[in-house]
Amino acid sequence: MLDKLDLTKTTDDAKYDATLQEYKDKLSILQRTLREQKIPVIIVIEGWNASGITMAVHEIVHALDPRGYTLYKIDKPTEEERARPFLWRFWLRIPPKGRITLFARSWYTRVIAEQTQKHSWEKSLKRRVNEINTFERQLADDGTVILKFFLHITKEEQKRRLEERERNPLTACLVTASIWNLHHHYDDALPVFNDFIKETDTPYAPWTLVEATDRKYAILKVYATIIKTLEKRSDAAEEGKAKKQKTKEIVKPKKNLVKRHSHPEKVLTKDELQDTLSQLQVEMLELHYLLFKRKIPLIVVYEGWDAAGKGGNITRVTRFMNPLGYYVVPVAAPTVHERDYHYLRRFIKYFPTAGDIAIFDRSWYGRVLVERVEKITPEADWQRAYQEINEMEEEFVYSSGGGIVKFWLEISKEEQLKRFNERASDPKKVYKITDEDWRNREKWDQYDEAVDEMLARTSTDIAPWTVIESDDKWFARVKALRTIIAAAHRLL
Amino acid sequence: MLDKLDLTKTTDDAKYDATLQEYKDKLSILQRTLREQKIPVIIVIEGWNASGITMAVHEIVHALDPRGYTLYKIDKPTEEERARPFLWRFWLRIPPKGRITLFARSWYTRVIAEQTQKHSWEKSLKRRVNEINTFERQLADDGTVILKFFLHITKEEQKRRLEERERNPLTACLVTASIWNLHHHYDDALPVFNDFIKETDTPYAPWTLVEATDRKYAILKVYATIIKTLEKRSDAAEEGKAKKQKTKEIVKPKKNLVKRHSHPEKVLTKDELQDTLSQLQVEMLELHYLLFKRKIPLIVVYEGWDAAGKGGNITRVTRFMNPLGYYVVPVAAPTVHERDYHYLRRFIKYFPTAGDIAIFDRSWYGRVLVERVEKITPEADWQRAYQEINEMEEEFVYSSGGGIVKFWLEISKEEQLKRFNERASDPKKVYKITDEDWRNREKWDQYDEAVDEMLARTSTDIAPWTVIESDDKWFARVKALRTIIAAAHRLL
Repeated sequence: MLDKLDLTKTTDDAKYDATLQEYKDKLSILQRTLREQKIPVIIVIEGWNASGITMAVHEIVHALDPRGYTLYKIDKPTEEERARPFLWRFWLRIPPKGRITLFARSWYTRVIAEQTQKHSWEKSLKRRVNEINTFERQLADDGTVILKFFLHITKEEQKRRLEERERNPLTACLVTASIWNLHHHYDDALPVFNDFIKETDTPYAPWTLVEATDRKYAILKVYATIIKTLEKRSDAAEEGKAKKQKTKEIVKPKKNLVKRHSHPEKVLTKDELQDTLSQLQVEMLELHYLLFKRKIPLIVVYEGWDAAGKGGNITRVTRFMNPLGYYVVPVAAPTVHERDYHYLRRFIKYFPTAGDIAIFDRSWYGRVLVERVEKITPEADWQRAYQEINEMEEEFVYSSGGGIVKFWLEISKEEQLKRFNERASDPKKVYKITDEDWRNREKWDQYDEAVDEMLARTSTDIAPWTVIESDDKWFARVKALRTIIAAAHRLL
Repeated sequence: MLDKLDLTKTTDDAKYDATLQEYKDKLSILQRTLREQKIPVIIVIEGWNASGITMAVHEIVHALDPRGYTLYKIDKPTEEERARPFLWRFWLRIPPKGRITLFARSWYTRVIAEQTQKHSWEKSLKRRVNEINTFERQLADDGTVILKFFLHITKEEQKRRLEERERNPLTACLVTASIWNLHHHYDDALPVFNDFIKETDTPYAPWTLVEATDRKYAILKVYATIIKTLEKRSDAAEEGKAKKQKTKEIVKPKKNLVKRHSHPEKVLTKDELQDTLSQLQVEMLELHYLLFKRKIPLIVVYEGWDAAGKGGNITRVTRFMNPLGYYVVPVAAPTVHERDYHYLRRFIKYFPTAGDIAIFDRSWYGRVLVERVEKITPEADWQRAYQEINEMEEEFVYSSGGGIVKFWLEISKEEQLKRFNERASDPKKVYKITDEDWRNREKWDQYDEAVDEMLARTSTDIAPWTVIESDDKWFARVKALRTIIAAAHRLL
């Protein structure tokens, strides 16, 4: 670990100049190859203050074609970012296929700061480690290469460098009181860094510890590691073209763990249901204010058969919500641009800020419904999605203190036919029915199986599914709103 | 104006219910029609505190399909937004083709707040009015419908409503001290609002003043105005399909106002130039720190012939810049998604934050170069672009305090051929040359004319063009960096 590193290592000028140029040329070529191979790369540079993070980034980017990389300097989160789950801003910054993203400081920065400042290390360590390892594993599973570097210097060296910066009028303003304060806590921070590095050093996102006393030695070590890793991946991709990746054995879930009925057990009149709905809408208005006041976010997911009444249900449920505190995210097929990223990114982007309600009209479950049935996504990928989705939902709930309500709107096959025909024959509704709806209907049984598996594998304690019996539209609206209200009460 | 409105107007319940439903149905149909016609719509709702802005937004969005609108509640700008030009965050929120964007408060909010709080009304009025009118006119020219509403109530009515909200435990927390403070300055604010409304009431973005004492009256007036305006536009679009829009008469600029030479007057050796460059790079390092410290942003635009050496020039110019304080924006053809917006939006998005340097490798000038020559954009549109670009650059400089440096990298036709052939025959460079480059070369004369006109019409006092004689690459690098350094000195 850090304290075992030999910080006296150096590189002489002659070797440095020759080797650096060679490395730069290699990296430049590798960048183009990886772009063609559509491999995304994340390079994280972490380390002590004044350990040379900026300088390392500097040397790397000068070998790169600016058309193919993005550099993020990670600072304190903005107000908007603070009102979101911890990893939200990093999800928005992941590289698309074929691009290199460099992080000068990263998701580790806040965690390290939290731990050293609050002295509550052990309490939240496990949670943070888990979040980060999951995040990195999901990206790696999607094909992203992740390289992480920690630049290490001694406390004495840090002091020397900070004093040097203070003497230079151009850099003096960068050495703030809080930087000196962190310096004085160097000895407390060291075991924390060690722990965290150990816990997050994984096969899919390994750490490289860098002896950073000698600038030149550090640069060459970073370069050598990047080149070796990228070459290995690029070669593997080349070979992999022929042989198919081996899919993990799939554990089939028990069937029908979640029962689905399309018709409500107890029949009420339309008038009774509308009265109840009006009362619930008023109750929701009040709850919405309270969620807003207490800064609790809520996600509501609508999935269901075509013509099950998602749109009408959403309109009724939101009738008395304050439009400044909720929004509907209509989910369609991903754009070309969106397809270049991990599939969860386009949903996480719309996750609600503290106090907001985000209603998803269709959602990330498309991965295990339409993408599965229509064979848009290989089986290995949608099989992996059940776990990824559970992790994402768990991460949202834990990290935001909010809730997730998920609806499956169930109608019978006969009821769907009736509604399709109604739409087709009503000039005011005909725009709602397309050839695609009819094609989907032909695959009813395949969708049925996919829905069963989805409900069985993603109905978790923190984000359970609620089946809404939607043959009766008014019943469906009442049940949906009642479920949201119950969830809000539990959160308040 | 506001003080002339009859605030006693009311609407009775029966009329309200019937008319509202009729309006909602109409708006719902209009939304679909406008989507098909690809017309973007902006609806701004402004007004006094407690005048019913939220309630008006509420009633409008409930008639809309959530798949086709976005609602923004405009609050104080975030830290990131504060570090950008005033209109930046609104440019990012404009609707794409066929979409409706509602603003609950808007770009007027900050201006009004500035004016009433600082009591410096007349000083900056002209500048702000000009900025806003230009912004709205540019969007309108691009086909956006802009509707602006101001909800008006008396001081007494405002007091009554604020007190009512204070009595309700759910809303009490919303009535802050600063809201009461604004209430006490109602009489000061009134003439300010009047002035501002008058100055920004334009044919392309007119204000509708709304008597908002009676909630129902206000809602119906807002609805009626929206429907009337959208119907008119939709009908015009229908008719307009046949007849071509009349293009304004074009004033041809004098030719060759900016002289172009591809070869430097004074010939220096490569060694001399490289020495000079090294010195300038060190000087730039220092200036970059100072720009960063004083939070001055800088834009550098690179345009030039294919193979003129833009990439190599940028690499040398940025050699010693801190990568955390500059970035290169490589500009390619717009994506499908980007094409749905006003063409300037995708560039404004990358404008630098305070203290950063943004280097554009190609830029918004593509509008009057490749889009003109390749006939991608109709003449009326690219002709309008010269003025739009000048306005955008001026707005950036005034509103950020930063600077813009623009380079045209000139090479001779012979030199280009030589470089094309070199690239084609060098396996390390062959990726740099494409069929498109050869096709562009065939249109040299057309590009030549477009460049002349661009330089003549967009070389302004605040953002002049610098022609870089690039037959000699090392000379070109020295001249570019020297020009940036001179600009930085002027800004500091």
